[in-house]
Amino acid sequence: METDTITAISTPIGEGAIAIVRLSGPEAISITEQIFKGKSLSEADSHTIHYGKILDPQTQEVAEEVMVTLMRGPKTFTREDVVEINCHGGMVAVNRVLEIILSKGARLAEPGEFTKRAFLHGRIDLSQAEAVMDLIRAKTDKAMSVALKQMDGRLSGLIQTLRQDLLETVAHVEVNIDYPEYDDVEEMSNEVMRDKTKEVHREIDNLLQVAKQGKILREGLATAIIGRPNVGKSSLMNALVQENKAIVTEIPGTTRDIIEEYVNVRGVPLRLVDTAGIRETEDIVEKIGVERSRKVLKESDLILFVLNHNEVLSEEDEKLFEAIQGLEYIVIINKTDLEQNLDLDRVKELAEGNPIVTTSLLVEAGIDKLEQAIADTFFSGEIDTGDLTYVSNIRHIQLLKQAKEALEEAMQGLEMNMPLDIVQIDVTRTWEFLGEIIGDTASDSLIDQLFSQFCLGK
Amino acid sequence: METDTITAISTPIGEGAIAIVRLSGPEAISITEQIFKGKSLSEADSHTIHYGKILDPQTQEVAEEVMVTLMRGPKTFTREDVVEINCHGGMVAVNRVLEIILSKGARLAEPGEFTKRAFLHGRIDLSQAEAVMDLIRAKTDKAMSVALKQMDGRLSGLIQTLRQDLLETVAHVEVNIDYPEYDDVEEMSNEVMRDKTKEVHREIDNLLQVAKQGKILREGLATAIIGRPNVGKSSLMNALVQENKAIVTEIPGTTRDIIEEYVNVRGVPLRLVDTAGIRETEDIVEKIGVERSRKVLKESDLILFVLNHNEVLSEEDEKLFEAIQGLEYIVIINKTDLEQNLDLDRVKELAEGNPIVTTSLLVEAGIDKLEQAIADTFFSGEIDTGDLTYVSNIRHIQLLKQAKEALEEAMQGLEMNMPLDIVQIDVTRTWEFLGEIIGDTASDSLIDQLFSQFCLGK
Repeated sequence: METDTITAISTPIGEGAIAIVRLSGPEAISITEQIFKGKSLSEADSHTIHYGKILDPQTQEVAEEVMVTLMRGPKTFTREDVVEINCHGGMVAVNRVLEIILSKGARLAEPGEFTKRAFLHGRIDLSQAEAVMDLIRAKTDKAMSVALKQMDGRLSGLIQTLRQDLLETVAHVEVNIDYPEYDDVEEMSNEVMRDKTKEVHREIDNLLQVAKQGKILREGLATAIIGRPNVGKSSLMNALVQENKAIVTEIPGTTRDIIEEYVNVRGVPLRLVDTAGIRETEDIVEKIGVERSRKVLKESDLILFVLNHNEVLSEEDEKLFEAIQGLEYIVIINKTDLEQNLDLDRVKELAEGNPIVTTSLLVEAGIDKLEQAIADTFFSGEIDTGDLTYVSNIRHIQLLKQAKEALEEAMQGLEMNMPLDIVQIDVTRTWEFLGEIIGDTASDSLIDQLFSQFCLGK
Repeated sequence: METDTITAISTPIGEGAIAIVRLSGPEAISITEQIFKGKSLSEADSHTIHYGKILDPQTQEVAEEVMVTLMRGPKTFTREDVVEINCHGGMVAVNRVLEIILSKGARLAEPGEFTKRAFLHGRIDLSQAEAVMDLIRAKTDKAMSVALKQMDGRLSGLIQTLRQDLLETVAHVEVNIDYPEYDDVEEMSNEVMRDKTKEVHREIDNLLQVAKQGKILREGLATAIIGRPNVGKSSLMNALVQENKAIVTEIPGTTRDIIEEYVNVRGVPLRLVDTAGIRETEDIVEKIGVERSRKVLKESDLILFVLNHNEVLSEEDEKLFEAIQGLEYIVIINKTDLEQNLDLDRVKELAEGNPIVTTSLLVEAGIDKLEQAIADTFFSGEIDTGDLTYVSNIRHIQLLKQAKEALEEAMQGLEMNMPLDIVQIDVTRTWEFLGEIIGDTASDSLIDQLFSQFCLGK
């Protein structure tokens, strides 16, 4: 196992009251002690905090006034000795403290390396580690609840139960195969297999049923607003942002590059296309039928299609209906404060059962109904995260699907009365796919790749 | 004194590994205990850290997995009971924890309120409190050193010594005035006064001498790059940013509104005018002589005036020389890779002794020389923060100037042999001005205003 001491700044970059430099590893305490002017850390009790100063080892000048928290392994996040140095929040000061620690032999942690150590030392499994990151990136309370439960091990527990069931079945069959002197062995084993695989299959299916919602809670609903010029697309965008608390996210490490805007509509996080995206949808009107425009629409989880109550349905409108056929969309008939010139029956016909909402964004009417329609579309009403175990991670969803497929092959084999040691191969594959979710059967490269997506200092 | 319990998020806004919610006040521990599932905090020792969970009081659901640090007053930053709740870094989770704490009766802290309490409870004086904020906003190592020393009380100590000297002198004179039976009282007192005022005057003068550097270290050097189109202004900007680590600062609370770019040139933080500013300087060329353009230039601490080695000096160039007359500037003759058509003697004449540097930004030549010239202009070479006490704060500088003026009036009075009890009034005013720096004689409204400039959670 890894034995060096790692360090990183663990608070977000920016001006704040407190910034933390964290160390983990066998030398965490001794390195800190060398540069800390205050109480003797090696003599201090675990889980205590101490006031003091960090000295620059070259000049012996004070580099920062700090509070040092000392936590001895294994009762720590990484199960190693952990030191957290709380600095005043300035980036220059924090960076200087980090540099001093690095000069004393600690290594700069890779993104996610603290959590990776927690995983490697058995404190948490892989799906729990992933939940830590989901929690940090959560955009709504509900997304947070899903992550918290996953972190708490609810998904892990379920997966482990399923794997245990499969393992016991295989063991049972093995035993029976080894003692073929009994008459009804073959039949009994077949029955056990049939029952268990059905049971596990149902459980996996349940998880996948709600996985779509889980994924949306986690990643937000990619939402495009389309419509002809002047129907009220910008007003709609503004109404959604104003009514609901917008959450602006900066992707760490790329400040100023990507800023996404999330809007929390009744627990559904909408990831609104930015202004550039809005302009893109203008293009859609012009270049309707062009492959690229279709792609933009196809990549959206939800399309808000705005029509003008005051104008007759144009050829452009009809083309837009064509373009979004088969996709998830809501029709918004805006400007109901103006006279009706729109053929509502024709709109209903074209909408093919998709929800239609009337609004007058000018006088702020109908926004409530629209929000309800958005929530309904995805959750058949208010979503209740309380009772369900959500699978929200695309990696987990794919592994569950693979597990389900392998299991279905086993079930088919049973139907066809294939020999049990053949059926067993598919059951074992199912067991392995489920194991990858919690990291039991995951490869090193997968683990490295997963943790590299974490933020620095976690 | 204030007796309620305050709370705020004390880490920068953004995704990070750790976020901290801080509480301070008499109810800090009891409020946390009500929502914390873990060790009993009221029974825990001071300065210890505990793992546990924050529960939502309404649903009893887990809101976050946390580490709680417990520090009982008076050995804390605010001298009150302080609790720091370390959360996973997600904004949703942290905000939920904050909301739960607020629902239990804590009040959202005003910006700077934690530090204000430290000041009101006598843990630090006003100049030290201001240094805390300077430290957070420091853009370079040297600015940080200045802030750290001020925070450590070096400036406070000096100011206190000066005030003590003045007070003793006044007391000495008072005593002598009360015992006028001695013959040489008047003369002796006069002499003491003369000596002391001279001494204090010299000390204040020393502080003011280096204050300009101190202020620049703290606030950065407002730097404008001017020149005709196509002389290489953007290349110069890019060269400075690339050669030196740029520090991008977001003013907290106004995300996406103001972003300033700082470049650290040999310890001198340059605050470069942004792209909009660059465009502004193009205007200067066009509308030379217009009052507004002059104002932009006048507000700069340093002007980098770029000329083209390959072109003859134009009328525009001459007008720019006129516009910056009397200001601090460096002439940069760029494009030395191309043939010389510029009249160097005429440039030297127009520059009136200001430094002239030749560069070829295209081949990255001369940038070193330019950086040295920038450093030289302001610090006569490398600045040494080690030996000097820097006054860096404009408020402190103004108070020192006022103290100096009052003292000079006292000194004039002594020269004119005015009665000592009149001279004493000016000495007392000096004492008061100095007291305002450390907050001894500062008004409540001043104190409120100062702390309101702090960031939230500090």
